[in-house]
Amino acid sequence: MLTLPSEVTVVEMLPRDGLQRLDRFVPTEEKIAIIDQLSTTGVDEIEITSFTHPNAVPTLRDGDEVATGIERHEGVTYRALVPNAVGMRRALDADVDKVNALVTVSETYSEHNQNMTVEETLSEVGSIVELAGGTDVSVEAGIGTSFYCPYEGKIPKEKTLAVVDRVVEAGVDEVTLATTMGLANPVEIDEMFTTVFERHSGIDVGLHLHDTNGLSLANTLTAMQAGVDRFDTSHCGLGGGTVLPEGLAGVGNTPTEDLVQMLTGIGVGTRADFERVEAVAHDVAGRLGVGATSHVLMGGTVDRVLETVAEANP
Amino acid sequence: MLTLPSEVTVVEMLPRDGLQRLDRFVPTEEKIAIIDQLSTTGVDEIEITSFTHPNAVPTLRDGDEVATGIERHEGVTYRALVPNAVGMRRALDADVDKVNALVTVSETYSEHNQNMTVEETLSEVGSIVELAGGTDVSVEAGIGTSFYCPYEGKIPKEKTLAVVDRVVEAGVDEVTLATTMGLANPVEIDEMFTTVFERHSGIDVGLHLHDTNGLSLANTLTAMQAGVDRFDTSHCGLGGGTVLPEGLAGVGNTPTEDLVQMLTGIGVGTRADFERVEAVAHDVAGRLGVGATSHVLMGGTVDRVLETVAEANP
Repeated sequence: MLTLPSEVTVVEMLPRDGLQRLDRFVPTEEKIAIIDQLSTTGVDEIEITSFTHPNAVPTLRDGDEVATGIERHEGVTYRALVPNAVGMRRALDADVDKVNALVTVSETYSEHNQNMTVEETLSEVGSIVELAGGTDVSVEAGIGTSFYCPYEGKIPKEKTLAVVDRVVEAGVDEVTLATTMGLANPVEIDEMFTTVFERHSGIDVGLHLHDTNGLSLANTLTAMQAGVDRFDTSHCGLGGGTVLPEGLAGVGNTPTEDLVQMLTGIGVGTRADFERVEAVAHDVAGRLGVGATSHVLMGGTVDRVLETVAEANP
Repeated sequence: MLTLPSEVTVVEMLPRDGLQRLDRFVPTEEKIAIIDQLSTTGVDEIEITSFTHPNAVPTLRDGDEVATGIERHEGVTYRALVPNAVGMRRALDADVDKVNALVTVSETYSEHNQNMTVEETLSEVGSIVELAGGTDVSVEAGIGTSFYCPYEGKIPKEKTLAVVDRVVEAGVDEVTLATTMGLANPVEIDEMFTTVFERHSGIDVGLHLHDTNGLSLANTLTAMQAGVDRFDTSHCGLGGGTVLPEGLAGVGNTPTEDLVQMLTGIGVGTRADFERVEAVAHDVAGRLGVGATSHVLMGGTVDRVLETVAEANP
């Protein structure tokens, strides 16, 4: 028998991970309208923007206006990505509930992507935790390249575990491992989280999955069996790796609608409402002109399939 | 820790389930060339055709020529679908190694699809087993609509188990449950196979997955954990349901290349060679003009992703 959690936390990444990847700037009012829609789906958390230098991520240069323009729904945690203490100060000014402090395991990736050594990013995490002290803002460490790196290939498990140790020591409230390249498989997921829980019992650990190899739902299922109960996903699957073969442009994060359909089907509790998630995914796909990028958007739901057949065979 | 089989049997369905679905007749020589390529990939079995009445499945009306025209590779089991005793006689004449005798759980589906009641199809299975007696041809029962039916919706587990009981009593060598609508989820898969193994210990059971809801690899992983070690797949994912919403036209069976990539990654033994499977999938996609229909074909492999990044960052 599968051992599954009674409920999981769904973290919506579209406004940050999804919109960051688009080759155009989505107007601020449009971003706010999308986030306000996402707030109605029942997802637990929404990563609304990144407080990164505007030159580094110009598509999200309006983070401050977005954070102050959105409606705050009760029960939803509004969080932002912060790469350093400068970003953390902006996040505090913008009154977010939580921040996602970015670290990577790969030295080469850290230098390419953040222009800092891993040691420097860990020091920023320390400053971010310090700045959060005395506020009600919680801090999550998002650990990129936890499994594979575009420059270093397969990342040894011990290197990832060492970074987990460091951010836990730094005093973060939560840790999320990210499959930046989307190449991790269920055995790698199982072994990693089993060891993480052995080393840090009671730790709040989540998983951020990209779907390059098509295993994101299999990996999610495996992670749940290992005890993980928080998952980053994105409506329409928008988001994912920046550097991938051309055909993979449409392969991003786990689509929120596909995850919520699975959770609902297998009886794992979620605050998210499948029908509402499905409707918002259709709407957001239309707004952003991204087509059908998930199985649910293609029509792969029990209701839709049975309805189609009934129509075809009156 | 995940409990996985040491090795699994991969059954290639493209020549039957894939080509049956195409809206054109693939010339016999082209079919033979494709099967001869598939024989070099290391898949264990290939379902080469269907010995159905030519009016029922005109795209496979050349089953006899296909069966006698292909090269038979050592170590590969060449099998055919047979809906009844008439088909079985053609299969014996064509000297196949194995037949897949078709039954469905849903009465309505059986009448729509095979123009027989479930009881009549079960009687045909009995005749097929009898005809196989004294030959070295083995008989598998493929049980359609084991989980969902386009006409009857969710199929009660007990109805499927009753059909399994009947085909086992009829003396088939192997049984395969098929997710005809591609809507089954991991908990349904787990519960079904756990019960099947409880009722028939030592039974040889396989799984035929369609991927309508995007869960085919998660379902495969779950089935392996429950003890299933034989999976039907199709190069390029070709095949799958006949009656589905429009957007799902490209969503077929589990792609062989995606399954073999997963098996290779998680250390489950397979006779299939990933690089060869990948190369043949590219070639077959080109021959049939079907585009990139799997994650591997889109470029989602460890080698391809790391190569692309290395090229982009010399």
